[in-house]
Amino acid sequence: VLLYNSAVSGNCYKVRLLLVHLGIPYDRENLDVVDRSNRPDVIGGLNPALRVPTIVLDDGRPLAESNAIISYFAEGTDYLPTDRYERAQVLQWLFFEQYQHEPHVAVARFMVLFKQDEIEPAVIAGKQEDARGAIAIMEQHLQSHTFFVGERYSIADIALYAYTHVAPEADVSLEPYPAVRAWIDRVAAQPGHVLITD
Amino acid sequence: VLLYNSAVSGNCYKVRLLLVHLGIPYDRENLDVVDRSNRPDVIGGLNPALRVPTIVLDDGRPLAESNAIISYFAEGTDYLPTDRYERAQVLQWLFFEQYQHEPHVAVARFMVLFKQDEIEPAVIAGKQEDARGAIAIMEQHLQSHTFFVGERYSIADIALYAYTHVAPEADVSLEPYPAVRAWIDRVAAQPGHVLITD
Repeated sequence: VLLYNSAVSGNCYKVRLLLVHLGIPYDRENLDVVDRSNRPDVIGGLNPALRVPTIVLDDGRPLAESNAIISYFAEGTDYLPTDRYERAQVLQWLFFEQYQHEPHVAVARFMVLFKQDEIEPAVIAGKQEDARGAIAIMEQHLQSHTFFVGERYSIADIALYAYTHVAPEADVSLEPYPAVRAWIDRVAAQPGHVLITD
Repeated sequence: VLLYNSAVSGNCYKVRLLLVHLGIPYDRENLDVVDRSNRPDVIGGLNPALRVPTIVLDDGRPLAESNAIISYFAEGTDYLPTDRYERAQVLQWLFFEQYQHEPHVAVARFMVLFKQDEIEPAVIAGKQEDARGAIAIMEQHLQSHTFFVGERYSIADIALYAYTHVAPEADVSLEPYPAVRAWIDRVAAQPGHVLITD
């Protein structure tokens, strides 16, 4: 497997974390997340959206969108339930993550890390407020659940962990969310866990 | 099946269209998409994100996120492939739709239909430009494919059709995208097709 990767991207970290859990070897090719000018040349033929992660399977076929990639690899493993309703619940949280969590938590973090001088403080503050709203929804769910679906660690947890645990890098404190903090500890304690910086 | 619905929402239309294709009867309860003040009372216990569509299955269990709902119902039918790689490609397009298409095409349409007096023209123009970018990615793919995955109509087409075919309501013309327009005609010609206004 070849992974077009970014070291700073939580979306890429989801794929790296699952591949380590599954013992699937892969190579990385790192792309810049700020200067994206070479993307059409490098991944244009593989992913029309030009985003990372994009992977190339051993047979040469490409696949894109972080949550589609982890769904593909998790199929038939302990990281994706077999029950039809639980599978749909996993997808519900994966779509929540891409629609209502990543666009706030990840984008606020990106602005704070890379664009602090260019973007209006009020815009960053708005993103941070939306990020807190997304994490509050997680907090509500985790007050009565150990993991997001079926009381077992799954790709729903991997997807939501990726940017939530680095929310402080977006200047979004996790102090008000004790259930989220306890869940972060449970995810980090899973066998084969690797860090976003690994 | 009970569907918490909005007549104007393309996300809800995806669910209605698939349920008709599958011959699954359902009841609708319509929620307002502008005044959302009653949502915590009505669907708070069913969907922590408070969005429509939210469904309640016949056994009382809830499910949310349009693309998770259509994935659930499509399982085991002609609307979702069985091949593992094709299933991942369907998910790739479903995540593309929720991350890079709906937030632009649907939000631009919502602004034009309901918020034209409140929102700065430059903000609406920015959303319309991003919407064109998303539709251009579809155009590129459809120049060499009849449907999004496996040359067969699937929930990837249903998800992308929902807001694309009403892009002109967002003042985003489909004139520059002939492959998209031909695909829209192919989707609308499917047996059992219903309109977003039905």
